[in-house]
Amino acid sequence: MHKNLLSRKAACDSHGQDSSYFLGWEEYEKNPYDPNTNTSGIIQMGLAENQLSFDLIESWLESHPNLAGFKRDGTASIFRELALFQDYRGFPAFKKYHTLRSFYHNSDRFDRDLKWRTGVEIVPIQCSSSNGFEITKAALEEAYGRAKKLHLGVKGVLITNPSNPLGTSTTRHELDTLLDFVVARDIHLVSDEIYSGTSFGSPGFISVAEAMIGRGNVSHRVHIVNSLSKDLGLPGFRVGAIYSRNDYVVAAATKMSSFGMISSHTQYLLSELLSDKEFMRKYTEENKRRLKERHRQLVKGLQTAGVGCLRSNAGLYCWADMRHLLESKTFEGERELWKKMLYEVGLNISPGSSCHCNEPGWFRVCFANISVDTLNVAIRRLKTFVDSCLCSQDSGRLLRGLPLCPSRKRRIPLPPHESSVGSCNGHLEICAGG
Amino acid sequence: MHKNLLSRKAACDSHGQDSSYFLGWEEYEKNPYDPNTNTSGIIQMGLAENQLSFDLIESWLESHPNLAGFKRDGTASIFRELALFQDYRGFPAFKKYHTLRSFYHNSDRFDRDLKWRTGVEIVPIQCSSSNGFEITKAALEEAYGRAKKLHLGVKGVLITNPSNPLGTSTTRHELDTLLDFVVARDIHLVSDEIYSGTSFGSPGFISVAEAMIGRGNVSHRVHIVNSLSKDLGLPGFRVGAIYSRNDYVVAAATKMSSFGMISSHTQYLLSELLSDKEFMRKYTEENKRRLKERHRQLVKGLQTAGVGCLRSNAGLYCWADMRHLLESKTFEGERELWKKMLYEVGLNISPGSSCHCNEPGWFRVCFANISVDTLNVAIRRLKTFVDSCLCSQDSGRLLRGLPLCPSRKRRIPLPPHESSVGSCNGHLEICAGG
Repeated sequence: MHKNLLSRKAACDSHGQDSSYFLGWEEYEKNPYDPNTNTSGIIQMGLAENQLSFDLIESWLESHPNLAGFKRDGTASIFRELALFQDYRGFPAFKKYHTLRSFYHNSDRFDRDLKWRTGVEIVPIQCSSSNGFEITKAALEEAYGRAKKLHLGVKGVLITNPSNPLGTSTTRHELDTLLDFVVARDIHLVSDEIYSGTSFGSPGFISVAEAMIGRGNVSHRVHIVNSLSKDLGLPGFRVGAIYSRNDYVVAAATKMSSFGMISSHTQYLLSELLSDKEFMRKYTEENKRRLKERHRQLVKGLQTAGVGCLRSNAGLYCWADMRHLLESKTFEGERELWKKMLYEVGLNISPGSSCHCNEPGWFRVCFANISVDTLNVAIRRLKTFVDSCLCSQDSGRLLRGLPLCPSRKRRIPLPPHESSVGSCNGHLEICAGG
Repeated sequence: MHKNLLSRKAACDSHGQDSSYFLGWEEYEKNPYDPNTNTSGIIQMGLAENQLSFDLIESWLESHPNLAGFKRDGTASIFRELALFQDYRGFPAFKKYHTLRSFYHNSDRFDRDLKWRTGVEIVPIQCSSSNGFEITKAALEEAYGRAKKLHLGVKGVLITNPSNPLGTSTTRHELDTLLDFVVARDIHLVSDEIYSGTSFGSPGFISVAEAMIGRGNVSHRVHIVNSLSKDLGLPGFRVGAIYSRNDYVVAAATKMSSFGMISSHTQYLLSELLSDKEFMRKYTEENKRRLKERHRQLVKGLQTAGVGCLRSNAGLYCWADMRHLLESKTFEGERELWKKMLYEVGLNISPGSSCHCNEPGWFRVCFANISVDTLNVAIRRLKTFVDSCLCSQDSGRLLRGLPLCPSRKRRIPLPPHESSVGSCNGHLEICAGG
């Protein structure tokens, strides 16, 4: 009865929590891998967290004891100041160094964040592996047309740059295409640049703010969101920011901030950290170096196991092509493979369907939330599985070097077989665009 | 143009920011009183902040250096753990000691918080000074009928206990009346108990949770909100909680928490503080003692200035009766008096109309956000103003000891005149119910 008296939103059961993304997390929680106590447990590769550079921040904290002890210049307590601070727009010092306006609490995954709370419908822009999942004018127009057929009023385009789940940064050409499109359609562009600080490879990251320069008709319709969850690996600190030149958007975001302000205690700590330019320079450089190395290890490991992935230059994950492992080239087949990965192989990875990919068989594999030893265990498990899987399903085709599906464009030699199971050795073809 | 593409909420200009409550804050910001550098500035008595006991928390922090330095047991760093923590339901240790469920960021003032964000309409329950602003069945039914006439679907009753702005705790009889009413009307009751820890006088605070005991039909329709902003004086830390036994409400609040989670950094610090039972016992006792003393000073000071107030036992403010100072007994008259107070007397206090009081002439006067010296300056200013005001307007009636308006029930002797302006001396009658 009392469900009816609640608002539609409060009474709504759906929050994306039944997706395989969350189910995988739940299974991991029940049986987490531990190198000492649970070696057969599930390895969490579905979590885009950056745990590679905590030691750098810990060292910085060690060297700033006054700060942690609520002291300024070694003596005066700043506790009262922090206890009372309530400006919804955030600390001036914090804003200065974070450079963005209107701070809010960040959270991830668009379905959960947007659909339930705001009631908006999300219409995926369907990109294809045939061109490395490039954002094209045709893909934008097709999605726009699909929304219109559903009688949806299109308000804007939302992108992640660098992309989640692709791990690629949006190219200058794609940004220009997007800006042209939102101007032509008279809609907004929201660029989620939460992974901008993870850009470890070439080509470098280009913010939409840069692509906007010289265009006179876009600044009121482009909005950037950012956070410290990925770059600094601080999701628990709940810090995000919105950057916009649209006064209505900034005013609304400021009002909304009253419900999601960052604790002054945390703002102060982080403003001190961010304002240490020398530390931040070193941190960024070292963090990117570590991400690049870990990315290299994962890509190489996946290759060893006979799995290719989209060439990428950013993010905390790879976009792995497991289409050749599907029993049927459908989303049902993808879900079956995901379940095997989770329950038999003991790897929690995210199926493409949970990211609205319209080609079955792609998986997001995270690499920055686990140790390199755990990564190696994951790769050995995957290799054993792929070997047995391919040998039983498709060994004839593979051994003759025949392509497994038409969209694969580049041959990558597999290293010699190392597993004790199966005996496949040869070539795989993977999509390598992007 | 792009305002139209935004949601109605984002494009809505109204956020209660044009009320006298916020205008007073703005004027204060322009010209804040300072005992050394700006003795003619505005004194901020419109801010329900508790600054009386910060020294206690500061001492506790001093004695817990490991905690502030992200250390557990003196050595192991808890930084990584905090950096990654993201359970929307909050730290178990934090919940245990705060005792309430589903943490969120708190903010104050219902118009701003509820109307803009949720789109609900608030229909005030009109209480009267004639019975000390008691919540009666008749007042509830009248408000319900008014809402129905406006074609509003009534979802629930929202109270503050202890009351803001009255400074009185809700009596057991009032709580029973409220529970009977929400059962009879099949609606919800939300009890905002943010000031529960400020209850310094007799009768003691009774939570609706206590009043519910033994009633079988209410637990799913009663929801309590609380926070650390008033009891511990930590509004900058943005910590609040919702307590409900309604699974739909808890589920919705948990989902909503993803947008307003408390920084793990802050949750950890506060869970350590709250779990120190001996400290919390001493803090609560000493904080209440200080609030009681400061309250006594304000009430006495107001009496000295010829201003009575509702008898109260909680909160960070008094509900002052300035009806005798109105030039006209209208809300226009109240606004004129408020402006005089702000611009001529230099006191920012909140007019009753900003709290939906339906009797012109009542003001909320805060006492815990300023020093006792500043309070005394405020009282001297007020006395000078009241003396000149009453002497010119109504001195004949006052000097003859005649009542100024029929609703005043109790005579309070005024102390001897101390101001250099005016020469009124005698008795005032004030409402002293509650």
